[in-house]
Amino acid sequence: LPEGISKLPIALEQLLFELQKLPTIGQKSAQRLAFHLLQRREKDARSLSAALIRVAEEIRSCKRCFYLAEDTLCPICKDAEIGRRDATSLCVVEQPLDVLAIERTGAFRGVYHILEGALSPLKGINTEDIRIAELLRRLGEEAISEVILATNPNVEGEATGMYLARLIQKQGTKVSRLAYGLPMGTHLEYTDAVTLARALSGRSSL
Amino acid sequence: LPEGISKLPIALEQLLFELQKLPTIGQKSAQRLAFHLLQRREKDARSLSAALIRVAEEIRSCKRCFYLAEDTLCPICKDAEIGRRDATSLCVVEQPLDVLAIERTGAFRGVYHILEGALSPLKGINTEDIRIAELLRRLGEEAISEVILATNPNVEGEATGMYLARLIQKQGTKVSRLAYGLPMGTHLEYTDAVTLARALSGRSSL
Repeated sequence: LPEGISKLPIALEQLLFELQKLPTIGQKSAQRLAFHLLQRREKDARSLSAALIRVAEEIRSCKRCFYLAEDTLCPICKDAEIGRRDATSLCVVEQPLDVLAIERTGAFRGVYHILEGALSPLKGINTEDIRIAELLRRLGEEAISEVILATNPNVEGEATGMYLARLIQKQGTKVSRLAYGLPMGTHLEYTDAVTLARALSGRSSL
Repeated sequence: LPEGISKLPIALEQLLFELQKLPTIGQKSAQRLAFHLLQRREKDARSLSAALIRVAEEIRSCKRCFYLAEDTLCPICKDAEIGRRDATSLCVVEQPLDVLAIERTGAFRGVYHILEGALSPLKGINTEDIRIAELLRRLGEEAISEVILATNPNVEGEATGMYLARLIQKQGTKVSRLAYGLPMGTHLEYTDAVTLARALSGRSSL
C-alpha cells in the first residue's frame, strides 16, 4: 500500500503471509481467501484452523512406504498385509499426491514407495535426500518381483528413474517405467514436439 | 476414488472439505494445498492454523464503516477522527477488499462505508440485508458532503448504486459514482460491446 495509508491489522497480515506460503497462492489470491474467511464471521476460519491442527497431529508417514498414515502403516500397506493388495508389485512415485492419481485409474493393485522428491543437483537434492536407501532395503526384505517407476515425466523425474533403474537391476529385480506418449483425447497438431518425439520413439508394432 | 481402494485419513478429508469451502479452491487445488501442508511436516499447517484463530479472535467490523478493525473503529475511521483523512467525503463499496483496491490508487483520502454485499432479489439479498440503514444513519449524524458510489460495475452493483443514489439525494447529499469506460492499456478492438457502449454514452467534451 502507498505510504501514509493505514495498514492492515497485524493478525490479517500474518494470515496473508501464511497463505502466500502455499503453492499457487499469490498476493491477490491470499487477499481473496483471507477476506472470505473474515466475512464468514469466524466460523469458517475456526473450522479450517481445527482441521489443520488435526491433520498436523494425526497424520504421519507410513513407516514402510511413506504414504499418509494414521497408524504405523498406511491403509494401502495394511491391505497388502492381509492379502487385499499385491505386495509383489511395487510402484515408485515422487509424492503422496501421485498415489491418488494412480489409485484413481483403478489399474494398479500393488503397493507403493514414495520417494518424497526427485534427484535435482541444481536444487541440492541428492540421493541421500530422498527415500532411496529405504527403497533398496524394502527390495532386500520384501518379496517384490517388479518395480514400476512412476516418477514425473520431466528432467528430474527421468534422471531419478534412470538412477533407480540401474540400482534395482543390480539387485536382480525386474524394473519398468510408465509409458511416455500422446495423452488421450488430444490432437497431434496440438502436441508439443518433445511428447511427439517420445511417442514416435516409443511406438509399438501392431 | 473407485470402490475397494483405501480412502484418505479422516483428518485429511476434513481438511479437504474445509479448503473447498474457499473461493476458487476446487477439488484438485484443495488436494495440492493439503498435501503441501502435510509435506511441510506440521510446521506450516500449525502456523496457518494459528493465524486463522488469531484473525477470528482479533478482527471485527468497524462499528462505523464496517471495514476491518482491531478496536471499535478501523484504522481509517481513526485517522479521520484525528483529521488525517477527509471525513466529509464518503466512498460506498460492497466489501472490505474493495477498500484495499481504492487505497492502492492513492487517489482517495476520504472515508468508507462497506455495504457487506449488493442488492440481489434473485439471491434473496434485499435492502435490509446490507448496511443501507447504517449508511443513512451516518449521513444524518456525520458531516458528509459527498457520497461516491463505488459498487461493482455489474447488474447487482449498479442496481444497488441506483437505489442508494435516490435515497441519498432525498437527504440532500451530493452523490456521484465511479466512471464507467475503457480500461487503460487496452485496445478498442478487444473491448467488449457493453463497456464500449458505456464509454460512448459517458464521453466527455474536450
